[in-house]
Amino acid sequence: MSITFYYAPNSSATRVHWVLEELGIAYDKVKLDLRAGEQHKPEFLAINPNAKVPALVVDGTPMFESLAIIIYLGDRFGADKGLWPRVGSGEHAEALAWIVWGSVTLGGTIFRIFYNTSEWFPAESRNAQQAETAGKEFEAQLGLLDQRLRGREYLVGDGFTLVDAANAAALGWALTMIKVDMTRFPGVAAWLDRCTRRPAHQALYAA
Amino acid sequence: MSITFYYAPNSSATRVHWVLEELGIAYDKVKLDLRAGEQHKPEFLAINPNAKVPALVVDGTPMFESLAIIIYLGDRFGADKGLWPRVGSGEHAEALAWIVWGSVTLGGTIFRIFYNTSEWFPAESRNAQQAETAGKEFEAQLGLLDQRLRGREYLVGDGFTLVDAANAAALGWALTMIKVDMTRFPGVAAWLDRCTRRPAHQALYAA
Ligand SMILES: N[C@@H](CCC(=O)N[C@@H](CS)C(=O)NCC(=O)O)C(=O)O
Ligand SMILES: N[C@@H](CCC(=O)N[C@@H](CS)C(=O)NCC(=O)O)C(=O)O
Repeated sequence: MSITFYYAPNSSATRVHWVLEELGIAYDKVKLDLRAGEQHKPEFLAINPNAKVPALVVDGTPMFESLAIIIYLGDRFGADKGLWPRVGSGEHAEALAWIVWGSVTLGGTIFRIFYNTSEWFPAESRNAQQAETAGKEFEAQLGLLDQRLRGREYLVGDGFTLVDAANAAALGWALTMIKVDMTRFPGVAAWLDRCTRRPAHQALYAA
Repeated sequence: MSITFYYAPNSSATRVHWVLEELGIAYDKVKLDLRAGEQHKPEFLAINPNAKVPALVVDGTPMFESLAIIIYLGDRFGADKGLWPRVGSGEHAEALAWIVWGSVTLGGTIFRIFYNTSEWFPAESRNAQQAETAGKEFEAQLGLLDQRLRGREYLVGDGFTLVDAANAAALGWALTMIKVDMTRFPGVAAWLDRCTRRPAHQALYAA
């Protein structure tokens, strides 16, 4: 087995990095300098034609999209480590629903807020009313997550899984930029804390 | 095995419907009247707290998110029918990358265009410059898909898979609303045609 992980610090690659550390499998790391445009080099485009990190090459097969990579790693290595349900089980169905929800629904709302508030984008392309609508949607989604976490420590099953890593990484990053009164979502706040205190997560920042 | 499919015509549920028909498995259908607000009834919220279609109940486990449902059905029923690669194979890695790309990256761009152009949303919340940026991104993504389809009939492997159904359904729907000169993307146009001419797709509209 051979795995090469292409990343940049503080990016969509971070949640894949966390997952690789949780799984404790061997892999090589290749850091790209996004400001220098290394993601546009032909060698990298052959791996990810989208010119983005993360990318993964597994036994010669290139993969892109952090969500796809996490599901792949979960299916292949996660069940044996108790970090992902067995393919075909009811818990696998729940894991897929919640991990996709985090990237498509919650992730979509987060990006919609950014496009309309962040200084990364030109002021003329931002719309305050759209930002407000998306902000309300974001709070409703945090409410839904809080409800899911009532009486549970983690999103699926009895213990921490890669579903928690994927979603806590995305949400934790969003909350560094979007102001929300998290005392309204105590279940989410406690869960984020539980997830990010894990040694595999701490290791990302120690390195 | 028991599968109940909750849907509304012409919605995100349509691609799941297509997939169920391709797989030829037995399932029950429950149609929701979204205008009448049936998605907000407590019985349905217990299945999908997001109050959206599609939803699926498989052997008692509720699932939401069309992408999650399609991956689940692929893993469980698709390989035996030649419509989905075996879990853990290199083609499974490619299938996950392309199906997630269709929902997260291409799907994200499509929604960004809608939020900024469609009359479903209040005029004051739409931004023409953001629509233009997203429109260029959409054409770049069509270009990437066209490049992938050069010398291939389908996105992954040698034959049609659920990756094609998921992405062709989403893109076909988007192209009814976004004007694009498809002669610039002949590979995509031919692929869309190949996919939507399949009997399982035609059956959706016959019913
Ligand atoms: N949907 C993709 C998003 C990947 C993405 O947007 N990556 C950014 C960093 S967070 C990137 O590589 N940007 C480089 C660029 O835009 O040039 C995923 O989850 O993998
Ligand atoms: N990301 C979800 C989107 C689901 C969704 O937005 N469904 C719409 C129909 S296309 C819906 O049920 N809307 C009902 C409502 O908004 O009240 C998926 O792919 O399943």
